[in-house]
Amino acid sequence: ALHILKTEKQQALALADAITKLKSTVRQCRQCHNLSETDLCSICTDTRRDKSIICVVEQFKDLIALEKTGLCKWLYHVLGGRIAPLEGIEPQDLTIDHLISRIRSEKVSEVVMATNPTVEGDGTALYISSLIKPLGVKVTRLARGLPGGSQIEFASGAILTDAILGRNPLE
Amino acid sequence: ALHILKTEKQQALALADAITKLKSTVRQCRQCHNLSETDLCSICTDTRRDKSIICVVEQFKDLIALEKTGLCKWLYHVLGGRIAPLEGIEPQDLTIDHLISRIRSEKVSEVVMATNPTVEGDGTALYISSLIKPLGVKVTRLARGLPGGSQIEFASGAILTDAILGRNPLE
Repeated sequence: ALHILKTEKQQALALADAITKLKSTVRQCRQCHNLSETDLCSICTDTRRDKSIICVVEQFKDLIALEKTGLCKWLYHVLGGRIAPLEGIEPQDLTIDHLISRIRSEKVSEVVMATNPTVEGDGTALYISSLIKPLGVKVTRLARGLPGGSQIEFASGAILTDAILGRNPLE
Repeated sequence: ALHILKTEKQQALALADAITKLKSTVRQCRQCHNLSETDLCSICTDTRRDKSIICVVEQFKDLIALEKTGLCKWLYHVLGGRIAPLEGIEPQDLTIDHLISRIRSEKVSEVVMATNPTVEGDGTALYISSLIKPLGVKVTRLARGLPGGSQIEFASGAILTDAILGRNPLE
């Protein structure tokens, strides 16, 4: 507040205007719940993407992080959080029903579960996976293990356990 | 040195004795180059282990970290470092020749490359793998990806790339 008092009136009004505009124009994409200024977001309307793969993330910021890699030519579905019974967040508080109806109505070949590799993220991934599997669609999970560039001697037991049990053939 | 001057004579002499003993009794295991007080280390002589799997590590401390998980019922091979041309460390400076002759003479079903997930560790794993593959032995690599407990939004591009490209079917 003190900062705004000190700034030029012009600037302060511009900020107020920007906030008003933000709240009135930014909404959720009708299809994937990504943030968007239009009915369908720029990812859902991108014709170069593989529409048969849906990547499921907890939050908009996870989508941003994945998009930055430039590797993700798929569509998304933003859950709006993760199942967290201790915080009172149940499956019906997320966009899970909408995800299932998308998978039922669209030609989906793979659902990539990209919830966080935490206890709640894992639980959410397993819960959603149990709903998708009966539909005969392949469900995958982002790989976990040693972070690139790290040292084995400093890795936690949990990370090493993931790395050992998840070891892959070396091509 | 000041600390030793201040300690009791008894303690200082015990330390000197321990150092002498360490240098005279601890050597490398004849088979896997693990540290050992005997000709063969306690891992190589452990009859409950699966002797058909050899896990290749850079250093003794990596072996310690992996053993702490309690998941590794295999044998090891300690390279004594990694190939690092910039530091003048060439393949012949490591115990690679011995590893290959072990694989030739023993019944080995899998070699787990557990060098660090760094540029040099990866290079070393690929180099050794190229020597093992013609022998018809399966070569695997510790999984890399998101470290358990982390958040996708804070993961580096390199980690997310590993996680995306290495995604696995969710069981």
